Amino acid sequence: MTSFFDKLNISIDQNNSLLCVGLDPVIDKLPKHLRTSQTPLFDFNKAIIDATAEFACAFKPNSAFYEALGPSGIEQLKQTVDYINQNYPNIPTILDAKRADIGSTNEGYTEYVYDYLQMDAITLHPYLGSEALEPFLAYKDKGQIILCRTSNPGAGEFQDLLLDGAPLYEHVAEKVRDKWNGNNNCLLVVGATYPSEMKKIREIVGPNMIFLVPGVGAQGGNIEETMEAGLGLNSRGLIISSSRDIIYAGSDEDFAQASALRAKETRDEINKYR
Amino acid sequence: MTSFFDKLNISIDQNNSLLCVGLDPVIDKLPKHLRTSQTPLFDFNKAIIDATAEFACAFKPNSAFYEALGPSGIEQLKQTVDYINQNYPNIPTILDAKRADIGSTNEGYTEYVYDYLQMDAITLHPYLGSEALEPFLAYKDKGQIILCRTSNPGAGEFQDLLLDGAPLYEHVAEKVRDKWNGNNNCLLVVGATYPSEMKKIREIVGPNMIFLVPGVGAQGGNIEETMEAGLGLNSRGLIISSSRDIIYAGSDEDFAQASALRAKETRDEINKYR
Repeated sequence: MTSFFDKLNISIDQNNSLLCVGLDPVIDKLPKHLRTSQTPLFDFNKAIIDATAEFACAFKPNSAFYEALGPSGIEQLKQTVDYINQNYPNIPTILDAKRADIGSTNEGYTEYVYDYLQMDAITLHPYLGSEALEPFLAYKDKGQIILCRTSNPGAGEFQDLLLDGAPLYEHVAEKVRDKWNGNNNCLLVVGATYPSEMKKIREIVGPNMIFLVPGVGAQGGNIEETMEAGLGLNSRGLIISSSRDIIYAGSDEDFAQASALRAKETRDEINKYR
Repeated sequence: MTSFFDKLNISIDQNNSLLCVGLDPVIDKLPKHLRTSQTPLFDFNKAIIDATAEFACAFKPNSAFYEALGPSGIEQLKQTVDYINQNYPNIPTILDAKRADIGSTNEGYTEYVYDYLQMDAITLHPYLGSEALEPFLAYKDKGQIILCRTSNPGAGEFQDLLLDGAPLYEHVAEKVRDKWNGNNNCLLVVGATYPSEMKKIREIVGPNMIFLVPGVGAQGGNIEETMEAGLGLNSRGLIISSSRDIIYAGSDEDFAQASALRAKETRDEINKYR
Protein backbone atom coordinates (compact mmCIF):
# COMPACT_ATOMS: atom_id res chain seq x y z
CA MET A 1 0.00 0.00 0.00
CA THR A 2 1.28 3.46 -0.84
CA SER A 3 2.03 5.51 2.26
CA PHE A 4 0.28 8.78 3.10
CA PHE A 5 3.50 10.63 2.43
CA ASP A 6 4.11 9.04 -0.98
CA LYS A 7 0.53 9.67 -2.02
CA LEU A 8 0.80 13.27 -0.92
CA ASN A 9 3.96 13.88 -2.91
CA ILE A 10 2.35 12.37 -5.99
CA SER A 11 -0.83 14.43 -5.66
CA ILE A 12 1.11 17.65 -5.04
CA ASP A 13 3.09 17.07 -8.23
CA GLN A 14 0.26 15.75 -10.33
CA ASN A 15 -2.18 18.53 -9.48
CA ASN A 16 0.39 21.24 -8.77
CA SER A 17 -1.51 21.82 -5.56
CA LEU A 18 -1.20 22.30 -1.81
CA LEU A 19 -4.99 22.57 -1.46
CA CYS A 20 -6.92 20.11 0.68
CA VAL A 21 -10.68 20.00 0.12
CA GLY A 22 -12.61 19.54 3.34
CA LEU A 23 -15.67 17.33 2.93
CA ASP A 24 -17.93 18.60 5.71
CA PRO A 25 -21.50 18.31 4.42
CA VAL A 26 -24.56 19.39 6.43
CA ILE A 27 -27.87 18.28 4.93
CA ASP A 28 -29.60 21.65 5.40
CA LYS A 29 -26.86 23.37 3.43
CA LEU A 30 -26.86 20.97 0.47
CA PRO A 31 -28.45 21.86 -2.86
CA LYS A 32 -32.18 21.19 -2.49
CA HIS A 33 -32.33 18.46 -5.12
CA LEU A 34 -29.93 16.30 -3.09
CA ARG A 35 -31.57 16.56 0.31
CA THR A 36 -34.16 13.87 -0.28
CA SER A 37 -31.65 11.26 -1.44
CA GLN A 38 -31.10 8.14 0.67
CA THR A 39 -27.40 9.05 0.72
CA PRO A 40 -27.27 12.85 0.47
CA LEU A 41 -23.81 13.24 2.00
CA PHE A 42 -22.26 10.70 -0.34
CA ASP A 43 -24.06 12.02 -3.42
CA PHE A 44 -22.87 15.52 -2.60
CA ASN A 45 -19.31 14.41 -1.82
CA LYS A 46 -19.07 12.36 -5.00
CA ALA A 47 -19.91 15.38 -7.12
CA ILE A 48 -17.52 17.61 -5.17
CA ILE A 49 -14.73 15.04 -5.40
CA ASP A 50 -15.09 14.58 -9.15
CA ALA A 51 -15.21 18.34 -9.65
CA THR A 52 -12.24 19.25 -7.44
CA ALA A 53 -9.91 16.22 -7.67
CA GLU A 54 -7.69 17.79 -10.31
CA PHE A 55 -7.04 20.77 -8.03
CA ALA A 56 -6.53 18.96 -4.71
CA CYS A 57 -3.57 17.36 -2.93
CA ALA A 58 -5.83 15.74 -0.29
CA PHE A 59 -9.43 15.25 0.81
CA LYS A 60 -10.36 15.75 4.45
CA PRO A 61 -13.76 14.64 5.73
CA ASN A 62 -14.48 15.70 9.31
CA SER A 63 -15.97 12.78 11.22
CA ALA A 64 -18.39 15.00 13.19
CA PHE A 65 -20.51 15.76 10.13
CA TYR A 66 -21.04 12.04 9.50
CA GLU A 67 -21.45 10.94 13.11
CA ALA A 68 -24.25 13.50 13.42
CA LEU A 69 -26.39 11.16 11.28
CA GLY A 70 -25.58 7.96 13.17
CA PRO A 71 -24.88 4.70 11.30
CA SER A 72 -26.10 6.10 7.99
CA GLY A 73 -23.58 8.92 8.25
CA ILE A 74 -20.74 6.51 8.96
CA GLU A 75 -21.85 4.38 6.01
CA GLN A 76 -21.75 7.44 3.75
CA LEU A 77 -18.32 8.39 5.06
CA LYS A 78 -17.12 4.90 4.17
CA GLN A 79 -18.69 5.21 0.69
CA THR A 80 -16.91 8.55 0.27
CA VAL A 81 -13.50 7.16 1.18
CA ASP A 82 -14.01 4.08 -0.96
CA TYR A 83 -14.93 6.30 -3.87
CA ILE A 84 -11.75 8.35 -3.50
CA ASN A 85 -9.55 5.27 -3.04
CA GLN A 86 -11.00 3.63 -6.14
CA ASN A 87 -11.10 6.60 -8.45
CA TYR A 88 -8.29 8.83 -7.19
CA PRO A 89 -5.83 6.40 -5.59
CA ASN A 90 -3.04 8.98 -5.53
CA ILE A 91 -4.97 11.53 -3.48
CA PRO A 92 -4.61 10.83 0.25
CA THR A 93 -7.55 11.01 2.65
CA ILE A 94 -7.34 12.62 6.08
CA LEU A 95 -9.93 11.92 8.77
CA ASP A 96 -10.36 15.08 10.78
CA ALA A 97 -11.50 13.40 13.97
CA LYS A 98 -9.36 14.99 16.70
CA ARG A 99 -9.18 11.78 18.68
CA ALA A 100 -7.06 10.72 21.65
CA ASP A 101 -7.80 8.34 24.50
CA ILE A 102 -5.71 5.99 26.64
CA GLY A 103 -3.66 3.46 24.68
CA SER A 104 -5.92 0.42 24.81
CA THR A 105 -8.90 2.53 23.76
CA ASN A 106 -7.05 4.20 20.92
CA GLU A 107 -6.86 0.76 19.31
CA GLY A 108 -10.59 1.09 18.70
CA TYR A 109 -10.00 4.37 16.89
CA THR A 110 -7.17 2.99 14.75
CA GLU A 111 -9.51 0.18 13.72
CA TYR A 112 -12.11 2.77 12.76
CA VAL A 113 -9.88 5.04 10.71
CA TYR A 114 -7.27 2.69 9.27
CA ASP A 115 -8.88 -0.76 9.12
CA TYR A 116 -12.54 0.03 8.56
CA LEU A 117 -12.43 3.38 6.72
CA GLN A 118 -9.07 2.71 5.02
CA MET A 119 -7.93 6.30 5.36
CA ASP A 120 -4.38 7.63 5.18
CA ALA A 121 -4.15 10.03 8.11
CA ILE A 122 -5.97 11.32 11.20
CA THR A 123 -5.91 14.42 13.41
CA LEU A 124 -5.11 13.89 17.12
CA HIS A 125 -5.26 15.79 20.42
CA PRO A 126 -1.91 16.01 22.27
CA TYR A 127 -3.28 16.28 25.84
CA LEU A 128 -2.76 12.62 26.88
CA GLY A 129 0.84 12.50 25.64
CA SER A 130 2.70 10.23 23.23
CA GLU A 131 2.49 7.10 25.38
CA ALA A 132 -1.29 7.08 24.95
CA LEU A 133 -1.05 7.80 21.22
CA GLU A 134 1.38 4.95 20.52
CA PRO A 135 -1.30 2.85 18.74
CA PHE A 136 -1.54 5.66 16.17
CA LEU A 137 2.17 6.48 15.99
CA ALA A 138 2.96 2.81 15.29
CA TYR A 139 1.25 3.07 11.90
CA LYS A 140 4.40 4.16 10.10
CA ASP A 141 2.82 4.66 6.69
CA LYS A 142 -0.06 6.76 7.95
CA GLY A 143 -0.03 10.46 8.79
CA GLN A 144 -0.49 11.28 12.51
CA ILE A 145 -1.49 14.93 12.62
CA ILE A 146 -1.14 16.46 16.09
CA LEU A 147 -3.10 19.58 17.08
CA CYS A 148 -0.55 22.28 17.81
CA ARG A 149 -2.11 25.68 17.21
CA THR A 150 -5.79 25.43 16.29
CA SER A 151 -7.61 27.93 14.08
CA ASN A 152 -10.49 28.91 16.40
CA PRO A 153 -10.76 32.41 17.95
CA GLY A 154 -10.35 31.09 21.53
CA ALA A 155 -7.43 28.79 20.73
CA GLY A 156 -5.10 30.67 23.04
CA GLU A 157 -6.94 29.90 26.27
CA PHE A 158 -4.57 27.01 26.99
CA GLN A 159 -2.33 26.99 23.93
CA ASP A 160 -0.86 30.39 24.85
CA LEU A 161 -0.13 29.64 28.51
CA LEU A 162 3.55 30.35 29.10
CA LEU A 163 6.06 27.78 30.27
CA ASP A 164 9.65 28.93 30.67
CA GLY A 165 8.71 31.94 28.61
CA ALA A 166 7.29 29.93 25.71
CA PRO A 167 3.62 29.16 25.06
CA LEU A 168 2.24 25.63 25.34
CA TYR A 169 1.80 25.23 21.59
CA GLU A 170 5.56 25.69 21.11
CA HIS A 171 6.20 22.94 23.65
CA VAL A 172 3.85 20.68 21.71
CA ALA A 173 5.86 21.41 18.55
CA GLU A 174 9.14 20.65 20.36
CA LYS A 175 7.90 17.38 21.86
CA VAL A 176 6.58 16.17 18.52
CA ARG A 177 9.89 17.10 16.86
CA ASP A 178 12.08 15.47 19.54
CA LYS A 179 10.08 12.48 20.71
CA TRP A 180 6.85 11.66 18.92
CA ASN A 181 8.23 11.64 15.41
CA GLY A 182 10.44 8.56 15.73
CA ASN A 183 8.66 6.93 12.79
CA ASN A 184 8.85 10.15 10.82
CA ASN A 185 5.09 10.11 10.42
CA CYS A 186 3.93 13.13 12.46
CA LEU A 187 2.42 16.32 11.11
CA LEU A 188 1.05 19.33 13.00
CA VAL A 189 -2.23 21.21 12.79
CA VAL A 190 -1.45 24.92 12.59
CA GLY A 191 -4.32 27.30 11.85
CA ALA A 192 -4.08 29.85 9.03
CA THR A 193 -5.67 32.36 11.38
CA TYR A 194 -2.42 32.63 13.38
CA PRO A 195 0.41 33.33 10.90
CA SER A 196 2.90 34.67 13.43
CA GLU A 197 2.46 31.55 15.57
CA MET A 198 2.87 29.46 12.42
CA LYS A 199 6.16 31.20 11.65
CA LYS A 200 7.45 30.38 15.12
CA ILE A 201 6.38 26.75 14.82
CA ARG A 202 8.13 26.46 11.45
CA GLU A 203 11.31 27.75 13.06
CA ILE A 204 11.00 25.16 15.83
CA VAL A 205 10.35 22.05 13.74
CA GLY A 206 12.40 22.95 10.67
CA PRO A 207 11.47 22.80 6.99
CA ASN A 208 10.61 19.08 6.73
CA MET A 209 7.56 18.71 8.94
CA ILE A 210 4.23 19.12 7.19
CA PHE A 211 1.49 21.35 8.59
CA LEU A 212 -2.19 20.73 8.03
CA VAL A 213 -3.59 24.25 7.86
CA PRO A 214 -7.29 24.85 8.46
CA GLY A 215 -8.76 28.34 8.62
CA VAL A 216 -8.58 29.82 5.14
CA GLY A 217 -11.91 30.64 3.52
CA ALA A 218 -14.88 30.83 5.90
CA GLN A 219 -12.67 31.22 8.98
CA GLY A 220 -10.83 34.20 7.49
CA GLY A 221 -7.20 33.05 7.34
CA ASN A 222 -5.04 34.82 4.74
CA ILE A 223 -3.27 32.69 2.12
CA GLU A 224 -0.37 35.04 1.46
CA GLU A 225 0.44 35.37 5.16
CA THR A 226 0.10 31.63 5.62
CA MET A 227 2.49 30.85 2.78
CA GLU A 228 5.06 33.36 4.00
CA ALA A 229 4.89 32.00 7.52
CA GLY A 230 4.74 28.29 6.92
CA LEU A 231 6.09 27.10 3.58
CA GLY A 232 8.59 24.26 4.01
CA LEU A 233 11.19 22.45 1.95
CA ASN A 234 10.87 22.49 -1.85
CA SER A 235 7.84 24.76 -1.74
CA ARG A 236 5.92 22.10 0.14
CA GLY A 237 5.26 21.36 3.79
CA LEU A 238 1.75 22.84 3.86
CA ILE A 239 -1.60 21.19 3.28
CA ILE A 240 -3.98 24.12 3.16
CA SER A 241 -7.51 23.05 3.87
CA SER A 242 -10.69 24.80 2.84
CA SER A 243 -14.11 23.31 3.42
CA ARG A 244 -17.20 25.54 3.45
CA ASP A 245 -15.78 28.11 1.04
CA ILE A 246 -15.32 25.43 -1.62
CA ILE A 247 -18.11 22.93 -1.04
CA TYR A 248 -20.80 25.61 -0.73
CA ALA A 249 -19.49 27.84 -3.51
CA GLY A 250 -22.71 27.10 -5.39
CA SER A 251 -26.16 26.04 -4.24
CA ASP A 252 -27.99 25.10 -7.42
CA GLU A 253 -27.87 22.04 -9.66
CA ASP A 254 -24.52 23.28 -11.00
CA PHE A 255 -23.00 23.45 -7.49
CA ALA A 256 -20.11 21.15 -8.42
CA GLN A 257 -18.90 23.44 -11.21
CA ALA A 258 -18.93 26.34 -8.75
CA SER A 259 -16.87 24.26 -6.33
CA ALA A 260 -14.41 23.31 -9.07
CA LEU A 261 -13.95 26.95 -9.96
CA ARG A 262 -13.43 27.97 -6.33
CA ALA A 263 -10.98 25.09 -5.79
CA LYS A 264 -9.00 26.10 -8.85
CA GLU A 265 -8.94 29.73 -7.75
CA THR A 266 -7.78 28.76 -4.26
CA ARG A 267 -5.10 26.42 -5.57
CA ASP A 268 -3.85 29.10 -7.94
CA GLU A 269 -3.88 31.75 -5.21
CA ILE A 270 -1.77 29.41 -3.04
CA ASN A 271 0.62 28.77 -5.93
CA LYS A 272 1.23 32.49 -6.40
CA TYR A 273 3.29 32.34 -3.19
CA ARG A 274 5.08 29.01 -3.66
CA MET B 1 -36.47 15.46 30.46
CA THR B 2 -34.59 14.75 33.66
CA SER B 3 -31.16 16.35 33.71
CA PHE B 4 -27.91 14.40 33.99
CA PHE B 5 -27.42 15.80 37.46
CA ASP B 6 -30.89 14.88 38.71
CA LYS B 7 -30.59 11.38 37.30
CA LEU B 8 -27.22 10.97 38.93
CA ASN B 9 -28.49 12.01 42.35
CA ILE B 10 -31.38 9.57 42.03
CA SER B 11 -29.16 6.67 40.98
CA ILE B 12 -26.63 7.36 43.73
CA ASP B 13 -29.41 7.26 46.32
CA GLN B 14 -31.36 4.40 44.82
CA ASN B 15 -28.38 2.08 44.38
CA ASN B 16 -26.26 3.51 47.20
CA SER B 17 -23.47 3.68 44.67
CA LEU B 18 -20.74 5.87 43.19
CA LEU B 19 -19.78 3.12 40.73
CA CYS B 20 -19.95 3.73 36.99
CA VAL B 21 -19.87 0.63 34.80
CA GLY B 22 -17.85 1.14 31.63
CA LEU B 23 -19.34 -0.62 28.61
CA ASP B 24 -16.26 -1.19 26.44
CA PRO B 25 -16.81 -4.49 24.63
CA VAL B 26 -14.28 -6.02 22.24
CA ILE B 27 -15.61 -8.98 20.24
CA ASP B 28 -12.53 -11.16 20.79
CA LYS B 29 -12.90 -10.82 24.54
CA LEU B 30 -16.61 -11.67 24.71
CA PRO B 31 -17.88 -15.04 25.90
CA LYS B 32 -17.62 -17.38 22.93
CA HIS B 33 -21.35 -18.06 22.63
CA LEU B 34 -21.98 -14.36 21.92
CA ARG B 35 -19.36 -13.75 19.26
CA THR B 36 -21.40 -15.12 16.38
CA SER B 37 -24.45 -12.99 17.12
CA GLN B 38 -25.50 -10.30 14.64
CA THR B 39 -25.32 -7.81 17.50
CA PRO B 40 -22.64 -9.17 19.84
CA LEU B 41 -21.84 -5.84 21.52
CA PHE B 42 -25.48 -5.13 22.29
CA ASP B 43 -26.23 -8.66 23.46
CA PHE B 44 -23.24 -8.50 25.78
CA ASN B 45 -24.08 -5.03 27.05
CA LYS B 46 -27.71 -5.93 27.67
CA ALA B 47 -26.68 -8.80 29.92
CA ILE B 48 -24.09 -6.66 31.73
CA ILE B 49 -26.57 -3.81 32.19
CA ASP B 50 -29.27 -6.06 33.64
CA ALA B 51 -26.77 -7.71 35.94
CA THR B 52 -25.09 -4.55 37.24
CA ALA B 53 -27.83 -1.89 37.15
CA GLU B 54 -28.69 -2.26 40.83
CA PHE B 55 -25.07 -1.48 41.76
CA ALA B 56 -24.35 1.38 39.36
CA CYS B 57 -24.83 5.16 39.45
CA ALA B 58 -24.01 5.50 35.73
CA PHE B 59 -23.16 3.59 32.57
CA LYS B 60 -20.31 4.78 30.37
CA PRO B 61 -19.81 3.32 26.89
CA ASN B 62 -16.61 4.45 25.19
CA SER B 63 -17.35 5.41 21.60
CA ALA B 64 -14.07 3.95 20.27
CA PHE B 65 -15.17 0.37 20.90
CA TYR B 66 -18.28 0.90 18.78
CA GLU B 67 -16.72 3.01 16.03
CA ALA B 68 -14.21 0.20 15.50
CA LEU B 69 -17.04 -1.81 13.91
CA GLY B 70 -18.33 0.97 11.65
CA PRO B 71 -22.09 1.55 11.21
CA SER B 72 -23.00 -1.72 12.93
CA GLY B 73 -21.09 -0.65 16.02
CA ILE B 74 -22.83 2.72 16.13
CA GLU B 75 -26.17 0.95 15.73
CA GLN B 76 -25.35 -1.31 18.69
CA LEU B 77 -24.28 1.69 20.76
CA LYS B 78 -27.65 3.27 20.03
CA GLN B 79 -29.44 0.04 20.97
CA THR B 80 -27.47 -0.02 24.20
CA VAL B 81 -28.39 3.54 25.17
CA ASP B 82 -32.03 3.00 24.20
CA TYR B 83 -32.10 -0.10 26.36
CA ILE B 84 -30.78 1.79 29.37
CA ASN B 85 -33.11 4.75 28.81
CA GLN B 86 -36.14 2.48 28.54
CA ASN B 87 -35.38 0.08 31.36
CA TYR B 88 -33.31 2.14 33.77
CA PRO B 89 -34.43 5.73 33.17
CA ASN B 90 -32.87 6.95 36.40
CA ILE B 91 -29.36 5.79 35.55
CA PRO B 92 -27.52 8.42 33.47
CA THR B 93 -25.42 7.49 30.45
CA ILE B 94 -22.02 9.04 29.71
CA LEU B 95 -20.45 8.86 26.27
CA ASP B 96 -16.71 8.58 26.75
CA ALA B 97 -15.75 10.11 23.41
CA LYS B 98 -13.10 12.70 24.29
CA ARG B 99 -14.25 15.06 21.58
CA ALA B 100 -13.42 18.70 20.84
CA ASP B 101 -13.23 20.60 17.55
CA ILE B 102 -13.93 24.18 16.48
CA GLY B 103 -17.38 25.46 17.37
CA SER B 104 -19.26 24.89 14.13
CA THR B 105 -17.92 21.33 13.94
CA ASN B 106 -18.78 20.54 17.54
CA GLU B 107 -22.43 20.96 16.54
CA GLY B 108 -22.04 17.69 14.63
CA TYR B 109 -20.83 16.00 17.80
CA THR B 110 -23.65 17.38 19.94
CA GLU B 111 -26.09 16.02 17.36
CA TYR B 112 -24.40 12.62 17.63
CA VAL B 113 -24.35 12.35 21.41
CA TYR B 114 -27.41 14.31 22.51
CA ASP B 115 -29.88 14.20 19.60
CA TYR B 116 -29.11 10.87 17.97
CA LEU B 117 -27.82 8.75 20.87
CA GLN B 118 -29.89 10.55 23.54
CA MET B 119 -27.16 10.37 26.14
CA ASP B 120 -26.78 12.48 29.28
CA ALA B 121 -23.10 13.47 29.26
CA ILE B 122 -19.88 13.41 27.24
CA THR B 123 -16.13 13.63 27.90
CA LEU B 124 -14.25 16.51 26.20
CA HIS B 125 -10.67 17.60 25.48
CA PRO B 126 -9.78 21.08 26.80
CA TYR B 127 -7.05 21.99 24.26
CA LEU B 128 -9.19 24.23 22.01
CA GLY B 129 -10.60 26.26 24.91
CA SER B 130 -14.13 27.07 26.06
CA GLU B 131 -15.05 29.21 23.04
CA ALA B 132 -14.82 26.14 20.81
CA LEU B 133 -16.73 23.98 23.28
CA GLU B 134 -19.66 26.38 23.60
CA PRO B 135 -22.02 24.09 21.59
CA PHE B 136 -21.54 21.48 24.35
CA LEU B 137 -21.57 23.89 27.29
CA ALA B 138 -24.88 25.35 26.08
CA TYR B 139 -26.64 22.06 26.86
CA LYS B 140 -27.44 23.03 30.45
CA ASP B 141 -29.05 19.76 31.46
CA LYS B 142 -26.25 17.58 30.14
CA GLY B 143 -22.94 16.80 31.83
CA GLN B 144 -19.86 18.26 30.08
CA ILE B 145 -16.91 16.32 31.43
CA ILE B 146 -13.56 18.00 30.75
CA LEU B 147 -10.31 16.02 30.72
CA CYS B 148 -8.17 17.42 33.52
CA ARG B 149 -5.78 14.72 34.75
CA THR B 150 -6.06 11.53 32.71
CA SER B 151 -5.34 8.05 34.08
CA ASN B 152 -2.71 6.86 31.58
CA PRO B 153 0.96 6.35 32.58
CA GLY B 154 2.22 9.11 30.27
CA ALA B 155 -0.44 11.65 31.27
CA GLY B 156 2.15 14.04 32.64
CA GLU B 157 3.93 14.74 29.36
CA PHE B 158 1.88 17.90 28.87
CA GLN B 159 -0.44 17.88 31.87
CA ASP B 160 2.49 18.30 34.30
CA LEU B 161 4.24 21.09 32.43
CA LEU B 162 4.65 24.00 34.82
CA LEU B 163 2.98 27.15 33.55
CA ASP B 164 3.42 30.16 35.80
CA GLY B 165 4.53 27.74 38.50
CA ALA B 166 1.54 25.40 38.38
CA PRO B 167 1.03 22.31 36.20
CA LEU B 168 -1.25 22.56 33.18
CA TYR B 169 -3.89 20.29 34.71
CA GLU B 170 -4.33 22.76 37.58
CA HIS B 171 -4.86 25.57 35.08
CA VAL B 172 -7.53 23.45 33.40
CA ALA B 173 -9.26 22.97 36.77
CA GLU B 174 -9.11 26.70 37.50
CA LYS B 175 -10.43 27.74 34.08
CA VAL B 176 -13.31 25.29 34.31
CA ARG B 177 -14.15 26.54 37.81
CA ASP B 178 -13.94 30.25 36.93
CA LYS B 179 -15.14 30.44 33.34
CA TRP B 180 -16.46 27.27 31.73
CA ASN B 181 -18.95 26.33 34.43
CA GLY B 182 -21.36 29.23 33.94
CA ASN B 183 -24.22 26.80 33.37
CA ASN B 184 -23.11 24.71 36.34
CA ASN B 185 -22.87 21.67 34.09
CA CYS B 186 -19.14 20.91 34.00
CA LEU B 187 -17.38 17.92 35.52
CA LEU B 188 -13.73 16.92 35.36
CA VAL B 189 -11.98 13.69 34.42
CA VAL B 190 -9.44 12.89 37.13
CA GLY B 191 -7.72 9.50 36.99
CA ALA B 192 -7.66 7.21 40.04
CA THR B 193 -4.03 6.49 39.23
CA TYR B 194 -3.00 9.97 40.44
CA PRO B 195 -4.47 10.47 43.94
CA SER B 196 -2.18 13.33 45.00
CA GLU B 197 -3.07 15.26 41.84
CA MET B 198 -6.74 14.52 42.55
CA LYS B 199 -6.39 15.97 46.06
CA LYS B 200 -4.95 19.17 44.63
CA ILE B 201 -7.73 19.43 42.02
CA ARG B 202 -10.36 18.95 44.73
CA GLU B 203 -8.80 21.82 46.68
CA ILE B 204 -8.91 24.01 43.58
CA VAL B 205 -12.50 23.41 42.50
CA GLY B 206 -14.09 22.92 45.90
CA PRO B 207 -16.45 20.19 47.13
CA ASN B 208 -19.29 20.66 44.62
CA MET B 209 -17.72 19.73 41.31
CA ILE B 210 -18.07 16.12 40.28
CA PHE B 211 -15.10 14.05 39.07
CA LEU B 212 -15.42 11.20 36.62
CA VAL B 213 -12.70 8.84 37.79
CA PRO B 214 -11.32 6.19 35.44
CA GLY B 215 -8.40 4.00 36.38
CA VAL B 216 -9.56 1.63 39.11
CA GLY B 217 -9.53 -2.05 38.24
CA ALA B 218 -7.43 -3.01 35.23
CA GLN B 219 -5.44 0.25 35.30
CA GLY B 220 -4.43 -0.22 38.94
CA GLY B 221 -5.94 2.81 40.69
CA ASN B 222 -6.56 2.39 44.43
CA ILE B 223 -10.10 2.96 45.72
CA GLU B 224 -9.18 3.96 49.27
CA GLU B 225 -6.65 6.56 48.07
CA THR B 226 -9.12 7.84 45.50
CA MET B 227 -11.86 8.30 48.07
CA GLU B 228 -9.56 10.07 50.52
CA ALA B 229 -8.28 12.40 47.82
CA GLY B 230 -11.44 13.23 45.93
CA LEU B 231 -14.67 12.74 47.86
CA GLY B 232 -16.90 15.83 47.63
CA LEU B 233 -19.96 17.24 49.33
CA ASN B 234 -22.35 14.85 51.12
CA SER B 235 -20.12 11.86 50.42
CA ARG B 236 -20.63 12.37 46.69
CA GLY B 237 -18.75 14.19 43.97
CA LEU B 238 -17.09 11.08 42.51
CA ILE B 239 -18.22 8.81 39.70
CA ILE B 240 -15.76 5.95 39.88
CA SER B 241 -15.61 4.06 36.64
CA SER B 242 -14.50 0.51 36.09
CA SER B 243 -14.77 -1.23 32.73
CA ARG B 244 -12.63 -4.28 31.98
CA ASP B 245 -12.47 -5.47 35.59
CA ILE B 246 -16.25 -5.71 35.74
CA ILE B 247 -17.37 -6.61 32.23
CA TYR B 248 -14.77 -9.37 31.84
CA ALA B 249 -15.07 -10.73 35.40
CA GLY B 250 -16.39 -13.97 33.86
CA SER B 251 -15.97 -15.53 30.45
CA ASP B 252 -18.47 -18.38 30.37
CA GLU B 253 -22.21 -18.48 29.87
CA ASP B 254 -22.65 -17.15 33.40
CA PHE B 255 -20.47 -14.10 32.70
CA ALA B 256 -23.18 -11.66 33.73
CA GLN B 257 -23.44 -13.09 37.24
CA ALA B 258 -19.68 -12.74 37.60
CA SER B 259 -19.95 -9.11 36.51
CA ALA B 260 -22.78 -8.50 38.97
CA LEU B 261 -20.69 -9.91 41.80
CA ARG B 262 -17.66 -7.81 40.82
CA ALA B 263 -19.82 -4.68 40.50
CA LYS B 264 -21.34 -5.27 43.94
CA GLU B 265 -17.89 -5.84 45.46
CA THR B 266 -16.53 -2.68 43.86
CA ARG B 267 -19.51 -0.60 44.93
CA ASP B 268 -19.20 -1.91 48.50
CA GLU B 269 -15.46 -1.30 48.55
CA ILE B 270 -16.10 2.31 47.50
CA ASN B 271 -18.81 2.70 50.15
CA LYS B 272 -16.40 1.63 52.91
CA TYR B 273 -14.73 5.02 52.47
CA ARG B 274 -17.78 7.26 51.99
